[in-house]
Amino acid sequence: MTLAPIITLTTDFGYRDNFAGVMKGVILAINPGARVMDLTHGLPRHDVASAAFSLLTAVPHFPAGAIHVAVVDPEVGSPRAIAAVRTSDSLFLAPDNGLLSYILEKYPDHQARQVQCPDILPPLLSRTFHGRDVLAPAAAHLALGFPFENLGPEMNNLVRLPSLRAEVGPDSIKGRVIYVDGYGNLITNIPNHLVAAWPPRSVISLGPVIITGLSPSYGTAPAGAWLAVAGSGGFLEIARNQGRAENPPALTVGTPVTVRKAYPVSSRGGR
Amino acid sequence: MTLAPIITLTTDFGYRDNFAGVMKGVILAINPGARVMDLTHGLPRHDVASAAFSLLTAVPHFPAGAIHVAVVDPEVGSPRAIAAVRTSDSLFLAPDNGLLSYILEKYPDHQARQVQCPDILPPLLSRTFHGRDVLAPAAAHLALGFPFENLGPEMNNLVRLPSLRAEVGPDSIKGRVIYVDGYGNLITNIPNHLVAAWPPRSVISLGPVIITGLSPSYGTAPAGAWLAVAGSGGFLEIARNQGRAENPPALTVGTPVTVRKAYPVSSRGGR
Amino acid sequence: MTLAPIITLTTDFGYRDNFAGVMKGVILAINPGARVMDLTHGLPRHDVASAAFSLLTAVPHFPAGAIHVAVVDPEVGSPRAIAAVRTSDSLFLAPDNGLLSYILEKYPDHQARQVQCPDILPPLLSRTFHGRDVLAPAAAHLALGFPFENLGPEMNNLVRLPSLRAEVGPDSIKGRVIYVDGYGNLITNIPNHLVAAWPPRSVISLGPVIITGLSPSYGTAPAGAWLAVAGSGGFLEIARNQGRAENPPALTVGTPVTVRKAYPVSSRGGR
Repeated sequence: MTLAPIITLTTDFGYRDNFAGVMKGVILAINPGARVMDLTHGLPRHDVASAAFSLLTAVPHFPAGAIHVAVVDPEVGSPRAIAAVRTSDSLFLAPDNGLLSYILEKYPDHQARQVQCPDILPPLLSRTFHGRDVLAPAAAHLALGFPFENLGPEMNNLVRLPSLRAEVGPDSIKGRVIYVDGYGNLITNIPNHLVAAWPPRSVISLGPVIITGLSPSYGTAPAGAWLAVAGSGGFLEIARNQGRAENPPALTVGTPVTVRKAYPVSSRGGR
Repeated sequence: MTLAPIITLTTDFGYRDNFAGVMKGVILAINPGARVMDLTHGLPRHDVASAAFSLLTAVPHFPAGAIHVAVVDPEVGSPRAIAAVRTSDSLFLAPDNGLLSYILEKYPDHQARQVQCPDILPPLLSRTFHGRDVLAPAAAHLALGFPFENLGPEMNNLVRLPSLRAEVGPDSIKGRVIYVDGYGNLITNIPNHLVAAWPPRSVISLGPVIITGLSPSYGTAPAGAWLAVAGSGGFLEIARNQGRAENPPALTVGTPVTVRKAYPVSSRGGR
Repeated sequence: MTLAPIITLTTDFGYRDNFAGVMKGVILAINPGARVMDLTHGLPRHDVASAAFSLLTAVPHFPAGAIHVAVVDPEVGSPRAIAAVRTSDSLFLAPDNGLLSYILEKYPDHQARQVQCPDILPPLLSRTFHGRDVLAPAAAHLALGFPFENLGPEMNNLVRLPSLRAEVGPDSIKGRVIYVDGYGNLITNIPNHLVAAWPPRSVISLGPVIITGLSPSYGTAPAGAWLAVAGSGGFLEIARNQGRAENPPALTVGTPVTVRKAYPVSSRGGR
């Protein structure tokens, strides 16, 4: 037996309403054998950048052929398009609001189409729930084999968030916080391998917080102490052992983070 | 291969405990191929009316043959019955406390049975978790083909919440808020199509809030402004763009909502 | 067709991040037909004892052959081992930090192995996400038939939490609160059947709260009143009807609970 493609759902719908459940119903009514899977529905409301990061770190772990549907859509009902993106081994469906930015940046060899084909959409679309009316049917039909090229016209300039790339200089790397996880850890856009290649006592700073060197894991610093670790998603992570790093709250998505290369320190002569 | 029927779960169990997981285990132990799906477990605790609305808007999107299990059961352990309801294409299982009211109202051509047959229930029922001990086994057995008629005696007077129907007069429609969603939008029992058929500047009022006409989508009003939209579930929805409509908190489930027909206004003579 | 084994997930990851979703991706990439099921991801952060209890009450309801993966892992990255445990009909995977204590106590006839075999693990493990890098691959491979004995060396002294057993004397049973559920009910380690076997007016006390006898269900006490019921997981439960029992907050996991046997009371002479 061939297994049906996996369809994953990533949204900011929260867990009170039936919105994600309704999308599952729509998918199953079109494609009764579909395998629908929740990635998360708990993203901060309307936070497109956090959703983009959540997709970036989840997608590489899924088998080829998966269809990833993401809905964080504060402009639902406006003329923003619904985009379908195909990389070498996965499909993505999301509003064209930047949500796929990091995927587009990571997989530059992709194609994009606007989801528009009336054959796969309900005759009447709501103005407030395109997850149900556009994204779910498109995913269900793609999983049935509907050709990507028939979804609608090509798209060439999808909305992009600021690049994920950190600025790498000879003595410093400049980046920013791009995600705060549920434990309060601050995830940056500075790749672990860059920091690991530098001398061990390089200095990491964000706002008033200064950290020297990478810790091997959360538990190696005293409780409450700030530390930096090689994050599991491939990026430098700032955390407090057993505490929440996003306090003080000024440290959040967008806060600049700098790593300064450590050199052998010559003793500074007094006076 | 025939696909197993879908069993959906709608509860107020929340996401801390294993209660929904336990129901899945019970279902799979009886019916190893069952396809169990979460609609939501985040309904407000003990709020039967919100659960009734959540079912109403989810069910029509599911394929025929689905079995919908709902558990919001503040009276668990009292003599209230567990009801099974069959409509033309779906099955429902829930405590008889009003939870199925809106389904019964929407699908008047239904049959109801009390779930009682000892053949499909464990020998000893707990007094505090009928979701596990009655509803899950009944769903698993129905999905295996157990005959609906054998569940137990017919039920003719299931508990009903106040009707979903709005009062429609020549110049006004009177309804109420019947659900508050996780974004804080207030969903009413006034059907979209009634409002859409009226002049565009008809006046919608709830409590101290007065709104003129329908907005095409959330984003068309200034941030924080009140607006009314045709909600995705078929009912008029009151929202604040990027805000939470249930503030002030006096506006909640049960708050009366009125739509007054707009007429060409004759200029009122000033002095 | 043979059904793939069920893999359940129990974590404290919460519902904001994609961590549980990532584990599903890893499992499916190794074992495309796996059936992965959420028990809960909402356990209190870093609370190993609550997770141990959550497993204890869920597992007996699942069919034989299920693989239960649990991740509450405050020491991730330290040298603590990842344990695999086999009972007569289930498999368990968890960090060796006490999380499997109550399972080990309930099923004394078990085997344990340390998960270490490089054949089934990624070449490079993160220091912060062994759920993804060790537990998920091990579960996926076990579900494919990888031999339990090949996981790694035997383990004989897994970390244990204090025993689940209550102290039973001739006139009293002494136990403690071992879990607080999402409704605020306090679950103890005192088995229902012990209390049920005693005279009906036996006295249950925890902190300043004194309750006489078992109530048949939550709804039989006045709203807000304290009551004790035979909990659905097999243990005595202290609750407030329609209230949250964990107020005052001093009553929580670890709070001692005593049941004192009631005897016919002789009238005490006055003066």
